[in-house]
Amino acid sequence: MADINVGRNILEANERLAAEHRRRFAQAGVKVLNLISSPGAGKTSLLEQTLSRLAGRLRCAVIEGDIQTDEDARRVAACGVRAVQIETQGACHLDGAMLAQALEPLDLAALDLLIIENVGNLVCPVDFDLGEDLKVAVLSVAEGDDKPSKYPALFREAGVLLVNKIDLLPYVSCDLERIHRTCRALNPKQVAFDVSCKTGEGLPAWVDWLESWVKG
Amino acid sequence: MADINVGRNILEANERLAAEHRRRFAQAGVKVLNLISSPGAGKTSLLEQTLSRLAGRLRCAVIEGDIQTDEDARRVAACGVRAVQIETQGACHLDGAMLAQALEPLDLAALDLLIIENVGNLVCPVDFDLGEDLKVAVLSVAEGDDKPSKYPALFREAGVLLVNKIDLLPYVSCDLERIHRTCRALNPKQVAFDVSCKTGEGLPAWVDWLESWVKG
Repeated sequence: MADINVGRNILEANERLAAEHRRRFAQAGVKVLNLISSPGAGKTSLLEQTLSRLAGRLRCAVIEGDIQTDEDARRVAACGVRAVQIETQGACHLDGAMLAQALEPLDLAALDLLIIENVGNLVCPVDFDLGEDLKVAVLSVAEGDDKPSKYPALFREAGVLLVNKIDLLPYVSCDLERIHRTCRALNPKQVAFDVSCKTGEGLPAWVDWLESWVKG
Repeated sequence: MADINVGRNILEANERLAAEHRRRFAQAGVKVLNLISSPGAGKTSLLEQTLSRLAGRLRCAVIEGDIQTDEDARRVAACGVRAVQIETQGACHLDGAMLAQALEPLDLAALDLLIIENVGNLVCPVDFDLGEDLKVAVLSVAEGDDKPSKYPALFREAGVLLVNKIDLLPYVSCDLERIHRTCRALNPKQVAFDVSCKTGEGLPAWVDWLESWVKG
């Protein structure tokens, strides 16, 4: 969401909450991811695959942001992981106030990793810092290779890029190398993984990286 | 974008501009579509396919909304159709003020149909009336069949639903009937077409419907 639409006071209030949350996460020793993508890029499938692979390796919990329904929280809970649902009731992103409520039932000190699945939106969530340690951008190859140049803010800010649904590459017109070239130009320090939640390809490398990052 | 994020005065100012635009469109005798979807659902490909099929049948122009780049306007212009680009510079939707500027170079009275391609975003554009006659929702089967229930506002307000990329159905887990069932429940009057810009399936039916609607 751009500055012309969000009042400066809204963003400043959010920054204050983000700083509070950041202090609280650091104190508890929990690492926090903010997972951002378009609707349908596969964030929830990625969560299911990631959490089942991390079982016994990291103590995880998830906060699920959705405009409506608690479908995603139920899918995550089915992996044996604590999931707290935020229904935004129309809002296009999560903010610090919503996060504060969702954190209430969680014992942060008992966690290694908290993953926040943001509302499906390639634009607005980027402007709302949640106090996370890392933004993870998810892009499905079915969305096309022009998305990083057309929606650069997320791809500039994300520390990790997951290019998902690579099993669809034979059936869609998407130049994987163009995605990586654009993203490297936007953020040369970004770590990138090509993955498929259908075939499992690339997931072990991503999960191993994530475990090292949390423990590092 | 939800009320909690958009000040009431912003929405009220937009409503006033929308009413002005609606009067202007009616006076010129031009029908106006507002095309809304997630990033990568295939709006621009649909435009290319629709405009080439409408050549010689309707006098068309396009307004292209993008956060950054003018790639889409160049793709549309390559179809021989006048395209005006709006680069929103970060904003997550088009509004009446941006539209007013984009309308300046267009001779509305010389047009039958004006198509506005909104910013790729399944949430925020819905709240900003552009004075259009019809909202058209585009959903790719690669996004999954849960999207209408998770992002209901667009699917409730859209007069037409285009389910795109049906050529991918054998390769993705998407129950087409679930999409239609959810959308019919949200808006029983909605007209729906299943289409593929790759194979051309369903496009003649959509384009014939569109021509009748514009002339009707």
